[in-house]
Amino acid sequence: MTRAELVSQIKQKRSFLCVGLDTDLSKIPVHLLETEDPIFEFNKAIVEATLPYCVAYKPNFAFFEAMGERGMKALRKTMELIPSTHFTIADAKRGDIGNTSERYAAAYFNDFNFDSVTVAPYMGSDSVKPFMKSDGKWTILLALTSNPGADDFEQLPLANGKKLYEQVVDTAKTWGTPEQLMFVVGATRVEALKALRERAPEYFFLIPGVGAQGGDLKSVALAAMNKDCGMLVNASRSILYASSGEDFASKAAAEARLMQEEMSVLLTQHGL
Amino acid sequence: MTRAELVSQIKQKRSFLCVGLDTDLSKIPVHLLETEDPIFEFNKAIVEATLPYCVAYKPNFAFFEAMGERGMKALRKTMELIPSTHFTIADAKRGDIGNTSERYAAAYFNDFNFDSVTVAPYMGSDSVKPFMKSDGKWTILLALTSNPGADDFEQLPLANGKKLYEQVVDTAKTWGTPEQLMFVVGATRVEALKALRERAPEYFFLIPGVGAQGGDLKSVALAAMNKDCGMLVNASRSILYASSGEDFASKAAAEARLMQEEMSVLLTQHGL
Repeated sequence: MTRAELVSQIKQKRSFLCVGLDTDLSKIPVHLLETEDPIFEFNKAIVEATLPYCVAYKPNFAFFEAMGERGMKALRKTMELIPSTHFTIADAKRGDIGNTSERYAAAYFNDFNFDSVTVAPYMGSDSVKPFMKSDGKWTILLALTSNPGADDFEQLPLANGKKLYEQVVDTAKTWGTPEQLMFVVGATRVEALKALRERAPEYFFLIPGVGAQGGDLKSVALAAMNKDCGMLVNASRSILYASSGEDFASKAAAEARLMQEEMSVLLTQHGL
Repeated sequence: MTRAELVSQIKQKRSFLCVGLDTDLSKIPVHLLETEDPIFEFNKAIVEATLPYCVAYKPNFAFFEAMGERGMKALRKTMELIPSTHFTIADAKRGDIGNTSERYAAAYFNDFNFDSVTVAPYMGSDSVKPFMKSDGKWTILLALTSNPGADDFEQLPLANGKKLYEQVVDTAKTWGTPEQLMFVVGATRVEALKALRERAPEYFFLIPGVGAQGGDLKSVALAAMNKDCGMLVNASRSILYASSGEDFASKAAAEARLMQEEMSVLLTQHGL
């Protein structure tokens, strides 16, 4: 999906919501466990319920890998039912030497047909650039994450006066354009979001941490929305597990709709 | 596998060789492509041929993931044929927020029964610590990698005078003991290897980059061997693809044996 198509979807749907598919067998409604493929049945119900309210889906690979081959098979089936109107993110946080990153890129972009993949910056250019070779395919680079451990390295002050995550953004901007590169910035870091928006005015941010991790949608939008919206806000647990009963899909839809309605207001306030 | 068991295997086998299973369908001998499961048949032949000469195997997940469910199935079957005398490394370079890293840890340690997993440090403590909860299971943290991109971030000077990878080692030492934590240090960085050995005298290093990437075994051993050996040297392509013909397994064995013999001399010279 190109940047123009993504922006157009955001404007049409009045939403910049990404639904994170962190599908967890120990949390999904028990009645699904009796079906042949509970992982897929859960994803299918969630996707069908939330389609009108979101512009993106982000399966987290850890959850599917932890379930072995049946997890990966369920992920593949899930990908097949997400329409091309929705941006898809392989949340895999990969990063390896060049020839290995090329393998991952092939797996996610060609084999699974994802629009984008999350990538860790630590190993540098040749671990990141292989993900930026195809038109309409995106690299989403970790910059400042929402977890407490972000203080350990991401926020370290460098000798040049920048923090590590700021240098990651500055360096990565020389590798990829706003048509192929986004940054992950946690919703729990509003001041940093604001500063990063100045540092990278055109780039999309993928923003996790609204909801279960405590970030606030309005302050995030105030800090980081740009003239094209320029942000995807992810919610996972708050939507997926809004109910543990048979009404889980309708409760998920209600939760997603609530966020979409708030997003619609924020877009309007921003002249979008 | 405990540290004492690993050291004992190194002394018995007179080897600190790790064979990296970067199994690539476009590189394996063509006659194997006619078998029902070429990925597994190749791995099986390589493992059987190299068992006497190495102490560890390191499947690189990118190669198996890129082949989808059949890749992961072949990886599982490969793991079943590696005996418990050999240390196993899931080269996955994972790292995600706490609850997600726990999923990965469960997948590699319990489900696949790996002894260890490679982890990226960028997201900090809560992305790394979930891998350090079980006895005899290891975290192998990226410190200074062998690829050119290591210059982009890993080698950045910090405000405190250290380089980022030195800080990663110093901080991670407070998270895990030499019984549960190793560091990845590339063979192409001999001076840094020497300095890191002083910084972390007791810790094992996993050293890639000997062979195809140009590192030299003797200088690496001089720089980083400690009183327990304290190092695993990985070779992948130079062993796996020593021949593209029907003799690939015997050529792989010969290549591994050559390295083992050189390692035996180095161990003796070091009084081990």
